[in-house]
Amino acid sequence: MDNVKYFLPETDIPTAWYNIAADLPVPLPPVLHPGTKQPIGPEDLAPIFPMAIIEQEVSTQRWIDIPTPVRDIYRQWRCTPLRRARRLEEFLGTPAKIYFKDESVSPAGSHKPNTAIPQAYYNKREGVKRIITETGAGQWGSSLSLAGTYFDLDILIYMVKVSYGQKPYRRALMETWGGRVIASPSNTTAAGRAILAEHPDSTGSLGMAIAEAVEVAAQDPEAKYALGSVLNHVMLHQTVIGLEALKQMELAGDYPDVVIGCAGGGSNFAGISFPFLGKKLRGERSTRILAVEPASCPTLTKGKFAYDFGDTAHLTPLLKMYTLGNTFVPEGIHAGGLRYHGMSPLVSHLSNLGEIEARAYPQLGCFEAGMTFARTEGILPAPESTHAIKGAIDEALRCKRENKAETILFCLSGHGHFDLPAYQDYRAGKLVDHEYSHEEVAMALAGLPSIT
Amino acid sequence: MDNVKYFLPETDIPTAWYNIAADLPVPLPPVLHPGTKQPIGPEDLAPIFPMAIIEQEVSTQRWIDIPTPVRDIYRQWRCTPLRRARRLEEFLGTPAKIYFKDESVSPAGSHKPNTAIPQAYYNKREGVKRIITETGAGQWGSSLSLAGTYFDLDILIYMVKVSYGQKPYRRALMETWGGRVIASPSNTTAAGRAILAEHPDSTGSLGMAIAEAVEVAAQDPEAKYALGSVLNHVMLHQTVIGLEALKQMELAGDYPDVVIGCAGGGSNFAGISFPFLGKKLRGERSTRILAVEPASCPTLTKGKFAYDFGDTAHLTPLLKMYTLGNTFVPEGIHAGGLRYHGMSPLVSHLSNLGEIEARAYPQLGCFEAGMTFARTEGILPAPESTHAIKGAIDEALRCKRENKAETILFCLSGHGHFDLPAYQDYRAGKLVDHEYSHEEVAMALAGLPSIT
Repeated sequence: MDNVKYFLPETDIPTAWYNIAADLPVPLPPVLHPGTKQPIGPEDLAPIFPMAIIEQEVSTQRWIDIPTPVRDIYRQWRCTPLRRARRLEEFLGTPAKIYFKDESVSPAGSHKPNTAIPQAYYNKREGVKRIITETGAGQWGSSLSLAGTYFDLDILIYMVKVSYGQKPYRRALMETWGGRVIASPSNTTAAGRAILAEHPDSTGSLGMAIAEAVEVAAQDPEAKYALGSVLNHVMLHQTVIGLEALKQMELAGDYPDVVIGCAGGGSNFAGISFPFLGKKLRGERSTRILAVEPASCPTLTKGKFAYDFGDTAHLTPLLKMYTLGNTFVPEGIHAGGLRYHGMSPLVSHLSNLGEIEARAYPQLGCFEAGMTFARTEGILPAPESTHAIKGAIDEALRCKRENKAETILFCLSGHGHFDLPAYQDYRAGKLVDHEYSHEEVAMALAGLPSIT
Repeated sequence: MDNVKYFLPETDIPTAWYNIAADLPVPLPPVLHPGTKQPIGPEDLAPIFPMAIIEQEVSTQRWIDIPTPVRDIYRQWRCTPLRRARRLEEFLGTPAKIYFKDESVSPAGSHKPNTAIPQAYYNKREGVKRIITETGAGQWGSSLSLAGTYFDLDILIYMVKVSYGQKPYRRALMETWGGRVIASPSNTTAAGRAILAEHPDSTGSLGMAIAEAVEVAAQDPEAKYALGSVLNHVMLHQTVIGLEALKQMELAGDYPDVVIGCAGGGSNFAGISFPFLGKKLRGERSTRILAVEPASCPTLTKGKFAYDFGDTAHLTPLLKMYTLGNTFVPEGIHAGGLRYHGMSPLVSHLSNLGEIEARAYPQLGCFEAGMTFARTEGILPAPESTHAIKGAIDEALRCKRENKAETILFCLSGHGHFDLPAYQDYRAGKLVDHEYSHEEVAMALAGLPSIT
């Protein structure tokens, strides 16, 4: 019988990341200064990012070398396995072949260390002593804490207060790796104190946590800020996923007709899809690319392609992206990693150019897909990843109806070991679906900054 | 640079388990009937185990074929990686080479599915509809639930009541895979009702849970009982660990001077060590074999090699094993998987013959070793596995003192994703060490049954 998984040796870990900016048919719109609304330069970002990261952010070079110390750490869990979901195929009775790239095998349980490691490395190399960041569900915070142990960096994480209380396991994981976690809003920053003065009982938000983290990083000359998604350099680092998958599909003697990823800020989606999309953009090989997002945060499917801020406090530069408006507050769904009002500018741009399809699913169907996956493939997926699974199952069922033996590839971005209460709530019937209407979206979009 | 991990293709999954009974210099003492105290026959076990399992329990055949449907499921995560702990070596400054076999990559996060899958398979093949078991910490219960999904079997788990409340994530995992979990003692059995009548607030014990599970299994003609450790067939199934490790050490161009495993009931320890010990018993190759146990449950280091019951209710057959006495109640340490009064008869017998060394550690040093491992190798170990890590670290430090470049191999039996509160308690200084004295052990041993 054919294999159910395809391993690559350590020597096959990519030596360079793939930068899709080199293959864009139309260049990316510039990033604008939040005050002047003019294109920003590297000096505007220097207080919060190391120069190597800023260079990657604006580079149009197709291949960017992965430093040896980063590859040496990647070796601990990369290449990650490409798996064939034979039991799921059998369960669905589909003629389609379903493959998935399993990023859940990283020490932090998701794809996030792929960028946390190089970000920590570049900061360390430029003499930074500590990195400040924010985290919602905790996937990013734990990955950066892990990276901190490898490069002897202090990691300070502002964790949205409601998650800080609700997700003690994630917090414990960050602390086990030496990260310091502060519930946000806090009295450690001016931004936090201002919020608490007005709303002493605030449960926090990602926007508030970003404001606190950026404030601390900007004021401390030995500290920088780090972001776990959205920005170009993050998409770049994540392409190790798709580059390995390309080689593994070759090992399997196959090539995907469709590549699927869940999309919140866009990083695991870009990671799995950009190397395949690049082949398409260069006219080498054709593949459908499908982004799946939650119906309660339908950035790509109902948002507007426009300039917007990354935070509610309007401290960040303006990015041209699909957005639901920076005042948009998604429902408290369990796929915390997909609750962001904006979307990676690169993913947004390519989506706007028609190179990427998008689809939104309500959460109940995603949890059902996650349960099916857990009971066929044995792996408990993260709530975020269940969106990609739902997309893959629907494509496989379409193949069944159309009697087509297509090849489907999706990214399993992480495991759900720290999300078990969400599965309990789902089985207990405590979860409901919420779909944002076009009217609600239009209201949130009314507050967008006007850029001429 | 040399590899940090060694993968084997699916085709290298062993085709047969290794039965160390074939190579014993002295045969295993017989199992005795709890009533007659005479050696039992297969018919005595037939009400609770399928015949294929009973045959394996008493077999002295060296190799026992692994059925194809079992290997097909093993393929989803086996062969598991053999990893070289280079960062840990560097941190310790040791000339020793430290390898570990990573059983944490299984869907349930431990080595337990290695035996849950074949046990479910044999039960299914003999027409069984449901399997009843007990679980303490939940590693075994979740593995058997997973196995139930693969073979469409109902799994009913009596979970010690105190764990049922304290470990909601483990319970949720079992239920996600379709297992039914009942807090024990319960009013679903005569045994449970009797306990509750006398102690309505009982928080339960493994002994009580076993009594309930066996009662249900014995009364239901469509049900059998399953055990996750101690018995010979469980040790047999776990030898896939060591058989793969043998091949992988060869890939690495190395051979262990010492093989280390943590030991509770003995199954992961037997799994990693028996294939190496077999080579030693057959005079092919020499290796030290080291079992590590908690100082608060020092079965091998302070127990007595004697006939004892497996449960407090004296329903099970009498096994000759190292035991602390069936009335022994270990402290509530976090390594729940190592809290058993007895030890696998095979491990006990070989230990008594001088083929196995044993060592006991208090829990604080083990958690410290676990933190060191998490911060060097990135993997968060289960509290049970930290005992093997502590053993490996101490051996590596001995090598440093003696300036010897020995090769150390240990089994990472599982990850600690569901044990994060234990790490929080450790860091908060809430855990204490408890070492059982020889006097306390002697008292518990005074209640042993007298067998002439």
